[in-house]
Amino acid sequence: MNIAFSSEEFANRVSRVQAEMSVHKLDALLVTSPPNFRYFSGFDSQFWESPTRPWFFIIPAEGDCIAVVPEIGAPLLQGSWIGKTLSWPAPRPSDEGVTLLSDTLLSLPRRHGRIGMEMGRESVIRMPVNDLFLLKDKLGSVDLVDGSPCIWNVRAIKSSGEVEYIRQSCTIVSDAFDKLPAHARCGQTELAISRALSVDIIAGGAHALPFMAAASGPGGYEQIISRPSDRVIENGDVLIIDVGATVNGYFCDFDRNFGFGKVDDDALRANEAIWDATEAAFAISRPGTKVSELWKAMMGVLEPAGMLRNNVGRLGHGLGLQLTEPPSHMPTDDTVLREGMVITIEPGMEYAPGKMLVHEENIHITSSGPEILTRRAPREMVIINN
Amino acid sequence: MNIAFSSEEFANRVSRVQAEMSVHKLDALLVTSPPNFRYFSGFDSQFWESPTRPWFFIIPAEGDCIAVVPEIGAPLLQGSWIGKTLSWPAPRPSDEGVTLLSDTLLSLPRRHGRIGMEMGRESVIRMPVNDLFLLKDKLGSVDLVDGSPCIWNVRAIKSSGEVEYIRQSCTIVSDAFDKLPAHARCGQTELAISRALSVDIIAGGAHALPFMAAASGPGGYEQIISRPSDRVIENGDVLIIDVGATVNGYFCDFDRNFGFGKVDDDALRANEAIWDATEAAFAISRPGTKVSELWKAMMGVLEPAGMLRNNVGRLGHGLGLQLTEPPSHMPTDDTVLREGMVITIEPGMEYAPGKMLVHEENIHITSSGPEILTRRAPREMVIINN
Repeated sequence: MNIAFSSEEFANRVSRVQAEMSVHKLDALLVTSPPNFRYFSGFDSQFWESPTRPWFFIIPAEGDCIAVVPEIGAPLLQGSWIGKTLSWPAPRPSDEGVTLLSDTLLSLPRRHGRIGMEMGRESVIRMPVNDLFLLKDKLGSVDLVDGSPCIWNVRAIKSSGEVEYIRQSCTIVSDAFDKLPAHARCGQTELAISRALSVDIIAGGAHALPFMAAASGPGGYEQIISRPSDRVIENGDVLIIDVGATVNGYFCDFDRNFGFGKVDDDALRANEAIWDATEAAFAISRPGTKVSELWKAMMGVLEPAGMLRNNVGRLGHGLGLQLTEPPSHMPTDDTVLREGMVITIEPGMEYAPGKMLVHEENIHITSSGPEILTRRAPREMVIINN
Repeated sequence: MNIAFSSEEFANRVSRVQAEMSVHKLDALLVTSPPNFRYFSGFDSQFWESPTRPWFFIIPAEGDCIAVVPEIGAPLLQGSWIGKTLSWPAPRPSDEGVTLLSDTLLSLPRRHGRIGMEMGRESVIRMPVNDLFLLKDKLGSVDLVDGSPCIWNVRAIKSSGEVEYIRQSCTIVSDAFDKLPAHARCGQTELAISRALSVDIIAGGAHALPFMAAASGPGGYEQIISRPSDRVIENGDVLIIDVGATVNGYFCDFDRNFGFGKVDDDALRANEAIWDATEAAFAISRPGTKVSELWKAMMGVLEPAGMLRNNVGRLGHGLGLQLTEPPSHMPTDDTVLREGMVITIEPGMEYAPGKMLVHEENIHITSSGPEILTRRAPREMVIINN
């Protein structure tokens, strides 16, 4: 199996989360979702696409972690740094690991009678709800409580190794975007242009390409989340492609806008405004700044530039093993930036009815300010005249 | 937005699930997971990679469906065939759609006081557990119950359009596998060979490549789910690559084994045995056969051929909008094959300690027997002597 980090890095993650667990009075933390399973175990697989078998990872208050996994996964985890790997013959719909899991949890030292799970904001569990209820019953007086704040607090601060993989992912996608003007032209579909970009991203070394969205229209677009469509690009269109590619599971998440032929002046001016908004955010992106202040700084540029609205609902977010992670750059999020965070800066606006433009870069918060991980977009929209 | 099916197809899916809901006495079905949201709504996006915002789809016992989605998604769904789209300004961590959702559910006609959710086998919900508990509270005397059997019963039978997309996906990946012997050679890593295959799959027209696993070793491998590693292929190795690529969301899921140089005779014989096992399954793959009988037919070939064990736990499964869907070809699954099902036939065995071989094809159950959707692998292992 690919293990992208040293055993020390995993030990460090575990000891940091154990410190959080102590504050939250948890006897153990039970993890089931792919990104958290990967973060604590190092397990690198896309087998999550098969929903048949749950996978469980237990971090006790003290001591070694325990993986409780279906037999198909045991050979991979038994050879790793993890303290103990237990497995059951799966699929076994009559008891898909729940008894083995509850027996293991009940065998741990009990102090607070509380086990944390991924229950809160931006967290989901990867096990059937029926099995969650069954687990609750089997645990009796031991409570299942929300452990997600512990996890997010630890994952928010990236190690140098994590930042390096995000940097590599940003570089691979930046290289692929740089090649786009040479192959894209009016008359092609969003899908054809995006496909050529995808090939460059995979050939360039990305391990996976879990997210690509595209949208286009005269002078802007209406949304930014749909898969590339069969819409044919015409003179005057702006095409956005937004990419989340990974290296060792670590995402980049940024978009680029391309104009085709004669693009309306209003669109060009709006594009410069959203670029200026990223600059306003960069200028204060340092430890101690609240993400609500990033939002305010960007809005200070967007509103005078004629912003009508923005259905995205925030102007950037955290980035790492997931395409989006907390925090959210919005007025109600007062998360304070700390050294080692990686975030997106993503101003966007509808500058005319039905015409939206969004710009996005990825940055790493260092003591001396932001390190821009993406290859900086130019202020003037790139125009393709092929 | 890409809509891969006619409005009639969606209306048909909804009326079939409404018939199941009537049997299960459900006033509504609430769907949150990406494949089910897509199946009933047609929504085609990889935005699921962002965990920030839940998406809800409501199928009432009678009448039009209702999408309850974050504002970022409203433009896409409002233009579609769906009866009504409601949205809330998101992210809004203090109430991420739960009040709008519960108000909408409570406004529906009440007959049984039961709302189905994805709670059972091979099902997960895509909303925080805390919000599920909040929803339960808000619904008061209306019970949330398991609605997943209704959904799986409907999804199990594929329409001709669904089969066509799986067929296309199988063809694209078959073409890419056919090119592999021309570019792969000893001395390359699993990763390099898999990357070239990935490029061919994307360039060949796959919309996404959510799953690729690879493993290699002298005469076989120990597991089949890890991402391609940096292991260098040597003379005598067998390399397996297992691929789940999609067209309009519909997966293929099959693997191919490649020998390099002088492969041990035992491995070659074992490869012929697993091929023979697929033939034994094909011979009885028709409406009326139980999947436990498919398992038995394959075991009748594998055991005499020297099978030690098989950590995969089953010998094939359903296929469609997910890499794996029910049923599971194993002794305890007596699901009866019906016309329109698409399944994998996936015999595998450890034929010597630490040496596993797995073979997989995808078939469509028709009244006249199996239609093999993958380009049939040869009985003799393909040997690469580059």
